[in-house]
Amino acid sequence: MRSLRGAALTVVLLFVCALAVPLAQPATWLETYREPIAHILRTAQADDFAWRRLTYLTDTFGSRLSGSSSLAAAIEWAVEEMGADGLENVRKDPVMVPRWVRGRESLEMLLPQPQSLPMLGLGMSVGTPPNGIEADLLVVDSFVELERRSTEAQGKIVLFNVPYRGYGPTVAYRVNGPSQAAAAGAVAVLIRSVGPEGMRTPHTGMLIYRDGVPRIPAAAIAVEDAARLARMAARGQRVRLRLAMEATLHPDVESANVIAEIRGRERPDEIVVVSGHFDSWDVGAGATDDAGGAIAAWEVARLLKSLQLRPRRTIRVVLFTNEENGLRGAIDYRDRYAATLGQHVLMVESDAGVFAPVGFGFTGNDIGRSQVTAIASLLASTGATRIAASGGGADIGPSVVAGRVPAMSLEVDGSKYFLVHHTAADMVDKIEPADFARCVAALTGMAYVVADMPQRLGEAVGTQ
Amino acid sequence: MRSLRGAALTVVLLFVCALAVPLAQPATWLETYREPIAHILRTAQADDFAWRRLTYLTDTFGSRLSGSSSLAAAIEWAVEEMGADGLENVRKDPVMVPRWVRGRESLEMLLPQPQSLPMLGLGMSVGTPPNGIEADLLVVDSFVELERRSTEAQGKIVLFNVPYRGYGPTVAYRVNGPSQAAAAGAVAVLIRSVGPEGMRTPHTGMLIYRDGVPRIPAAAIAVEDAARLARMAARGQRVRLRLAMEATLHPDVESANVIAEIRGRERPDEIVVVSGHFDSWDVGAGATDDAGGAIAAWEVARLLKSLQLRPRRTIRVVLFTNEENGLRGAIDYRDRYAATLGQHVLMVESDAGVFAPVGFGFTGNDIGRSQVTAIASLLASTGATRIAASGGGADIGPSVVAGRVPAMSLEVDGSKYFLVHHTAADMVDKIEPADFARCVAALTGMAYVVADMPQRLGEAVGTQ
Repeated sequence: MRSLRGAALTVVLLFVCALAVPLAQPATWLETYREPIAHILRTAQADDFAWRRLTYLTDTFGSRLSGSSSLAAAIEWAVEEMGADGLENVRKDPVMVPRWVRGRESLEMLLPQPQSLPMLGLGMSVGTPPNGIEADLLVVDSFVELERRSTEAQGKIVLFNVPYRGYGPTVAYRVNGPSQAAAAGAVAVLIRSVGPEGMRTPHTGMLIYRDGVPRIPAAAIAVEDAARLARMAARGQRVRLRLAMEATLHPDVESANVIAEIRGRERPDEIVVVSGHFDSWDVGAGATDDAGGAIAAWEVARLLKSLQLRPRRTIRVVLFTNEENGLRGAIDYRDRYAATLGQHVLMVESDAGVFAPVGFGFTGNDIGRSQVTAIASLLASTGATRIAASGGGADIGPSVVAGRVPAMSLEVDGSKYFLVHHTAADMVDKIEPADFARCVAALTGMAYVVADMPQRLGEAVGTQ
Repeated sequence: MRSLRGAALTVVLLFVCALAVPLAQPATWLETYREPIAHILRTAQADDFAWRRLTYLTDTFGSRLSGSSSLAAAIEWAVEEMGADGLENVRKDPVMVPRWVRGRESLEMLLPQPQSLPMLGLGMSVGTPPNGIEADLLVVDSFVELERRSTEAQGKIVLFNVPYRGYGPTVAYRVNGPSQAAAAGAVAVLIRSVGPEGMRTPHTGMLIYRDGVPRIPAAAIAVEDAARLARMAARGQRVRLRLAMEATLHPDVESANVIAEIRGRERPDEIVVVSGHFDSWDVGAGATDDAGGAIAAWEVARLLKSLQLRPRRTIRVVLFTNEENGLRGAIDYRDRYAATLGQHVLMVESDAGVFAPVGFGFTGNDIGRSQVTAIASLLASTGATRIAASGGGADIGPSVVAGRVPAMSLEVDGSKYFLVHHTAADMVDKIEPADFARCVAALTGMAYVVADMPQRLGEAVGTQ
């Protein structure tokens, strides 16, 4: 009883504190934004410019893997369009990126019956010899089972048939599974796709080879086939497979982060970054991952420009390159702007899809948290009112760490993201135009106030 | 007001009639089945034998297109298993079937950007030259628009971007679209898949070439890509495509309808056929179309055998071959058994998936209708209580017509069938084991009573 009472008291206290933070905040500075924000939100939600730009991007260029001609063409298009938007300091920051090319690939069942199985090679996987790798199958459901049956893995194709329990807990099998199996003597690896069951839909994504063990080819199969092969193994049926992959890692090629700004009217050296990544996997059209996020970030600047709202500080749009298989764009940004990271007031990333927004994740000090919580209270018409315990993103991560920059992520309804994540189905049709408009509205409202408010984010009023 | 009152009266009268039919039926014969049927339904729903057989079939043999080694192997397996079940007169009725082989196939966007689009060639399509067919795209939304823009179709790849409005109204574009477009001078045809939007999932299926126009290659693309290409056309973007298909129609090969019986104890020459088709398209595992229906039909006989219930009349299980691309099994059955079709009391087909059953479609006389309605009242625990206005199936169709045989189809919740229909996603995971068990139970209960009841179906009690 004691601990239950204690827990109840804690909940009540937390609730009071949560209410108290915005209440304690002097709201004078906030009040002046009520009208401009309402205007921004109305405009963003009434206008289909962003939606048309998003569909043009995904329709025309499709998938945009680092090193592909479609990413390069999309980058040229973005630079041109940003100029046409009247944005400032439009530029490409050159970044050398890996060029992994999938090539043709197939997975054939040879025994008990010839059958072709849908598959997607994992990003950065090595290929197979031209005639493929032919071996019997061993199915395991965890690293623990692999360990226990490691003598059986020798010479086999190992399938990690790991049920999806959310991205975080399951993705380790995609990232580390290939080297774990190789260490046990496997000749190739299959993983059950990291996502809920779809329409026999394999999900690709990056693997990381460990030094000191052979690099063996690895591919994802659909949930349905993983379950099927597991049933066959449980019946004692001998399953023999042939995996053929042309996958090749070519020398690095030049790509770029795309940058555009609205220079601040009073403190141009203080910067609010809004960002997404412009590259994608080489299947689907990278619509939710992350064309939507990238276009929404870009739209922050275009909208403010079209509304002739120039904030005190600079708003910098960054369309990062190579998020999916290298983070070279993220690292380049950190290194290129190392000297000015201290003047980065906030870095925002949208890379969780542009579904119905629910708020923002935020990592920063308590004053900053109370400020963004107050700003979010003006965004009710978008749904983005909740400030979650932490925020960030893969692209802004290195800069955030190096510069101790406050970090923010757009948070959305997450129920659909991992259904299409890294699949051929990541198409613009999976996004509701109204949801996307709300994402744009919320990002623009938040970024505008942070860039414009009298005090710097994280500092009390009157300290500057 | 008059017509409203009239309508209300009609509704009331229809309702009274609907109630009156079963009430008017002397229920003595029916009552004797209450206990045996309850026992059958309990057994069918408690036992996972049928489910294990279904998963074994789809896991092991996968897709089973006419002429494929997997269909041939599955047929051998079925014959062997039927023998092991103790069924009678187990046999293969040989049937010559077409052998259409898909081969490799691809659809590439060349302009405005190189992109690969998921596709499935339509069944029985001709192939392309080895390097494919390269042409600009024309998008139309109907035969009417094709007619209106026929001068533009010359030399083009024509896409029929026809929204899915149910299978019946839309499938004409898959069946007839290729020849319609060829008549207008098109060099190849794409259709928007006949089904609701999935996970970028193309749906294959049969086309029929019209005599007198060139046979041009045809393929289905996903709903997402059809919408995308239509948006690009609407923007005035030039889209150039390359379609490559190795599809080839080889000479006919021998396949078979698989037959097994429980001979009737009193009137063995009177026959109740229960059936599904054993072939499938060459993608997915043909689980809902129609392994589920075929195994459910087979299970009728196995269950009765295991329960030692031998009905008055013969129950004949037929696993038809070549439903998908030729109906050769259906035609063979009609011709081979022409002399005995008059002794077919009822032909039942299950080919709408084995989702939650709701009843049966029935085509026959009014007495027969009242009898099957009465029998269905004993099937409440399965959900299969409704008798719809008409019933039948592609496989039983020719025999039903030739022999004026009463026809019945198992009717199920249809909400999921066309999502996976003719796609790679037609896997056993899409079926709920409990739904399948209910289908087996309902079919077995219905077939048993029709085969066993004193009067022949469609004849009044006491006429024999």
